[in-house]
Amino acid sequence: MHPAEFRQNVREGRFQGPTSGQCGPYAQANLVILPQANADDFLRFCLFNPKACPLLGVGEPGQWAIPALGEDLDIRTDVPGYYVYRDGRRAEELTSLEALWRPDFVTFALGCSFSFEQMLLQEGIPLRHIQEQKNVAMYRTNVKNRPAGPFAGERVVSMRPMKAADAIRAIQITSRFPGIHGAPVHFGDPSLIGIRDLQQPDYGDAVAILPDEVPVFWACGVTPQNALSGAALPLAITHKPGYMLVTDILNSSLAVF
Amino acid sequence: MHPAEFRQNVREGRFQGPTSGQCGPYAQANLVILPQANADDFLRFCLFNPKACPLLGVGEPGQWAIPALGEDLDIRTDVPGYYVYRDGRRAEELTSLEALWRPDFVTFALGCSFSFEQMLLQEGIPLRHIQEQKNVAMYRTNVKNRPAGPFAGERVVSMRPMKAADAIRAIQITSRFPGIHGAPVHFGDPSLIGIRDLQQPDYGDAVAILPDEVPVFWACGVTPQNALSGAALPLAITHKPGYMLVTDILNSSLAVF
Repeated sequence: MHPAEFRQNVREGRFQGPTSGQCGPYAQANLVILPQANADDFLRFCLFNPKACPLLGVGEPGQWAIPALGEDLDIRTDVPGYYVYRDGRRAEELTSLEALWRPDFVTFALGCSFSFEQMLLQEGIPLRHIQEQKNVAMYRTNVKNRPAGPFAGERVVSMRPMKAADAIRAIQITSRFPGIHGAPVHFGDPSLIGIRDLQQPDYGDAVAILPDEVPVFWACGVTPQNALSGAALPLAITHKPGYMLVTDILNSSLAVF
Repeated sequence: MHPAEFRQNVREGRFQGPTSGQCGPYAQANLVILPQANADDFLRFCLFNPKACPLLGVGEPGQWAIPALGEDLDIRTDVPGYYVYRDGRRAEELTSLEALWRPDFVTFALGCSFSFEQMLLQEGIPLRHIQEQKNVAMYRTNVKNRPAGPFAGERVVSMRPMKAADAIRAIQITSRFPGIHGAPVHFGDPSLIGIRDLQQPDYGDAVAILPDEVPVFWACGVTPQNALSGAALPLAITHKPGYMLVTDILNSSLAVF
């Protein structure tokens, strides 16, 4: 299914679930919507922390159309789930922002690891959380983000266990895609980045790590969500985790070489 | 110093040492010279095992000039040390092949890790064996080469300990250079590739591995030398380890992207 048709289904309430596996070759995006008063700081935060916050697109103030991400896209209605944060706390869960939209809202679309996972699977690299039908394991680290305005906090990483040869190949593959988190930021000993117990992820589900595997860590799109919570803005909107924006951008077109 | 001038010095006996650090930006090569009767099998062996035996150049039978590697190059005299193997055993060490040269000799020049080490150092990735002024540590593995004719045996690897972030960067850098061993073949647990004790290398010198480092393993140019010994040919010639052929090929020109 083409993303335009998929978004139409979302818009009209015919699709309401998580988007994993939908429109496979097309990039899905993390969503952040902020009042313009905070948008400049958040833009700098993304530019300062590109591995965790790779910008796929930015909307014009007040515009719900973002043609660079999808010709007919309406950011108020085309994501199957939204979280509204007030003063840093989750306040509402919505399926449309039409009632809430303001002329000063600025939309940020950030690259998502679903895209590079598709590339890894295409190369025959098995992904444990998919084999185990779980959400990927994610962890808070002690690696500080470079702050911008009220946005700061620590990097969150996702972890995929792999054999070393697969990890080397995965580093090669994901290096081609800086727009979707790029190369891993760490592998091996989790304590070196402040993770105490791989079996107790901070988000998602723990997965088995076999004796001939190493944990490989990528910067994760939960990083900006944490930074948002920490900033405790009066108002901020994100997608509901797993309920992503499906764009018209082919994953393969995001390769920088 | 330009490689042409350096080779002139070697040819005339003014330079007689190991070539590490000479003509920095230019590729140095491992050398194998075989009678034509064995050359076809060895060529296939290189093509079958490109990570250990990356071909930089092949000479025409009987020709001591190899213009692709250096305009004025004379393979009989331009390497500061040669080993002559007879029936698989080292028989002589020479500084010239002029007396030994035969019209059926075929020369193979294979990429050398000196080239990618220069790339790693340029990126600020420290190399322990250079810090400790030692030869790089090399190990026989249990990874079988794909055999061709009499050439077989197991892969030999070189090991460099690195922090994970440096290892990820090193994988990116060396992936661009398949002609000089390319990306690592393994990292982490050495027992997974049949190495029992990193402090007891089979060639070169043991180096310190710090608690926050992982051993990273690249396929090594000693692999073909071992395959040569195993083949026990009546006659085979190589460079003396560390006494390499200095070519006119810029390392940077070997990047495939």
